[in-house]
Amino acid sequence: MKKHNFSSGPAILPQSVMEEAAKAVVDWNGIGLSVLEMSHRSKEFTAVMEEAQQLTKELLHIGDDYCVLFLTGGASSQFYMTAMNFLEQNETACYIDTGNWSAKAIHEGKIFGNIEVIASSKDRNYVYIPKEFTLPSHAKYLHITTNNTVQGTQFHHIPNVDVPIVADMSSDIFSRPIDIKKYGLIYAGAQKNMGPAGTTMVIVRKDLVGKLSRQIPTMLDYATHIKKGSMFNTPPVFPVFVSMLTLRWLKAQGGVEAMEQINIAKAKMLYDEIDRNSCFRGRVDEADRSLMNVTFFAETPELEKAFYEICEAEHISQIKGYRTIGGFRASIYNAMPTSSVEHLVQVMKRFEEQA
Amino acid sequence: MKKHNFSSGPAILPQSVMEEAAKAVVDWNGIGLSVLEMSHRSKEFTAVMEEAQQLTKELLHIGDDYCVLFLTGGASSQFYMTAMNFLEQNETACYIDTGNWSAKAIHEGKIFGNIEVIASSKDRNYVYIPKEFTLPSHAKYLHITTNNTVQGTQFHHIPNVDVPIVADMSSDIFSRPIDIKKYGLIYAGAQKNMGPAGTTMVIVRKDLVGKLSRQIPTMLDYATHIKKGSMFNTPPVFPVFVSMLTLRWLKAQGGVEAMEQINIAKAKMLYDEIDRNSCFRGRVDEADRSLMNVTFFAETPELEKAFYEICEAEHISQIKGYRTIGGFRASIYNAMPTSSVEHLVQVMKRFEEQA
Repeated sequence: MKKHNFSSGPAILPQSVMEEAAKAVVDWNGIGLSVLEMSHRSKEFTAVMEEAQQLTKELLHIGDDYCVLFLTGGASSQFYMTAMNFLEQNETACYIDTGNWSAKAIHEGKIFGNIEVIASSKDRNYVYIPKEFTLPSHAKYLHITTNNTVQGTQFHHIPNVDVPIVADMSSDIFSRPIDIKKYGLIYAGAQKNMGPAGTTMVIVRKDLVGKLSRQIPTMLDYATHIKKGSMFNTPPVFPVFVSMLTLRWLKAQGGVEAMEQINIAKAKMLYDEIDRNSCFRGRVDEADRSLMNVTFFAETPELEKAFYEICEAEHISQIKGYRTIGGFRASIYNAMPTSSVEHLVQVMKRFEEQA
Repeated sequence: MKKHNFSSGPAILPQSVMEEAAKAVVDWNGIGLSVLEMSHRSKEFTAVMEEAQQLTKELLHIGDDYCVLFLTGGASSQFYMTAMNFLEQNETACYIDTGNWSAKAIHEGKIFGNIEVIASSKDRNYVYIPKEFTLPSHAKYLHITTNNTVQGTQFHHIPNVDVPIVADMSSDIFSRPIDIKKYGLIYAGAQKNMGPAGTTMVIVRKDLVGKLSRQIPTMLDYATHIKKGSMFNTPPVFPVFVSMLTLRWLKAQGGVEAMEQINIAKAKMLYDEIDRNSCFRGRVDEADRSLMNVTFFAETPELEKAFYEICEAEHISQIKGYRTIGGFRASIYNAMPTSSVEHLVQVMKRFEEQA
C-alpha cells in the first residue's frame, strides 16, 4: 500500500516519474544499457542535460543571460560558494535571517566577506518574514531564503531592491512563477521540489561571474561550469535524469502558473482545517504561511502523541515536526496529490470527533 | 539485446544490482515508498549508509582509525580539498605525475600550498609509471593516481614512503587488496568501479584532520563529515544506495582478493590477444599495464575505422579511446563479465582473419 509521504525532503516525486525512472534503470529506451551505466558524454545523456536546462528556462521564463547548472553539494555548498564567487574580502553583502538555513548561509558567507544581517525574525523564533529593512548603498547583493522548510514561513512578496538578489529556493523552486530580473543567482537542492537527492540547481546571471581577485578552485568557480554547460566533470547522471523527468511532468501539468494555483488550493484546504479544528493550531503568522511546509501544533502533548499514532495507522508518513520545533510539519510540494491532503484533513476531522 | 559496455565511466554495474535498484525505485522492500522519496534521516536510509561504510571497511580491511565518507563533487573536488585540508600555505606536498588526472590534482593543490612534482612520465606521453624518485624530508604527504583511466597505466607497486600517501583510486578502488597503513586519504568517484555517478568515496585517517590554521568552509572540512558520519547534510541517497548494493555483490563474489584474481585473468586474456593479433598493438609499457583500462591501437587508420564499425555491429559499446589519445580503450572493471571480454577477443580474432 502506497504511503502518503509528507517528508520535507528527500520528498515525494510524481508516481509516473518514479515508474519511468525505474524502467530506465533496467534498460533505457531500449538501447541495451541502463541509465546508471551510461557515459555522461553519450549523446543520450547530453540530450538529457540539455533538456533539463531548457525546461528550467522555459518553465521559469529565463533568458540566455542566465545559465542553468546542475551541480552537487546541496544548498550547504552554495552558502559559501555564493560569497566566494561574488564578494571580495572587503566587500559587503546583506542577508535577511528567516531561519536555520539563512543562519547557516550567513555563517559561511562571513568567511569570504562582510556579511550584514539587515533584518531578522529570530526575536520571535522565526514565525514571520521581516518586511521592513534598509539596504545600505554599499551592499553588493541581498541574500534571502524564499521558503523556510523548518519554520514553515515563505516570502509571498520578493523585495524590490537595487542590487541582485541571491536566493535559496531549495524548498519552493518551481512551486510558483518568479520574476527572474530580480535575481543574480538562485540555488536549490533538488530533493524537495525538483528531483531526488544528489543534484543542486544553480541559476546564475552570467555577467556577475568571474569578476573577483580571489583565486578559486576550478570546481568552485561558477565560470567553470557555465563554460562547460554544467558538464565540466561527471555530473550526477541519475539525479539529473530524474529531475528532467519531473520537469517534463511539471510542464504537462501546465507549468508553474498552473502549479501555483494547485498549491494555493492544497495549502488553503489544510490551513483552513488547522484553524477550524479545536485540536490544532498553526505555528506561524498567517500572512507568512508557507504553501510548501505547513507547520502546526496539537493543543496538548497528549493530543500530539495520539495524532501521531493515528497518522501512522492511516499511512501518513513523515509528518513529525523538525526536532528543535516539535509538533507537526506536512510538506505538500508539487508532487503531493490533492487527494493525500484531503486524506490528512479527513483524518484530522475524525480525530477531533473522537478526541 | 544487452550491450557489452566497455565505458570508462560512468561504467557497467552488476546486472543484479541494477535490477534490485530498479525495484527499490518503485517500492523499497515493500514499505510503500520509493527509495527516491525517502528521508535521509529515516531508519531505512541510515541503515544503508552504515552498511555501505561497514562493507567498505570489511572489504578493504580498514580499522576504526579511518573514516569512510560518501561525499559529492567527484575526484575533481578532492584535487583541491586534500591540499586545503592537509597543507598550510607554506608547507609542501609531493606529487607523482602520471597523466591527465594527476596533472589536475597538481594544478588545484597549488592554490593551497607548495606542490613539488618529484616524478613524471610526461616525457613519454604517460605510457609508464615512474619508479625512481626521492621524497624530500619536508614533504607532508605524497600524492599518487593509482590507476590512470585515460592512459591505461597502473601502479602495481605502491611506493614505501615515510609520509602518508594521498591516493586517487577513482578507477581501481575495490579492484584489488590495499595496504591501508600506507594511506592518509584515498578518494574515488563512484562511477567507475563502485556505483553510479553522484557520490565520491573518501577514506581518511582521522588523526590527520582538523590541524590547520586555515579557515575552511564547513562543507569542505573533512572534520565536519567525519563528526556526522557522512550525514552532515542530505547525502546523494540513491547513488549511495546503489554503491551499497554493489559492495554487497562484491562481498558475495569473495571480496577484493577473489576479484583481483578475476581481474588479472580478464586483463591477461585481452592483453594476450592484443600482443598476438597482427592488427593491434598495446599503448603502454608492459610492466605498467592497467588491469582496468586496456588501451590499444590498430596498426593503421583504416583498420581502426573498420574495427570500430565491427564493434558497433557486435554490440560492443564505448570502446573508443580518449579523444586526445585515439585508438581503443576497453574498460574492464569488476562488473565486466569474463564472457564480455571473451566476446571482444573473439571479435578481434575474426577481425584479423578477415582483414
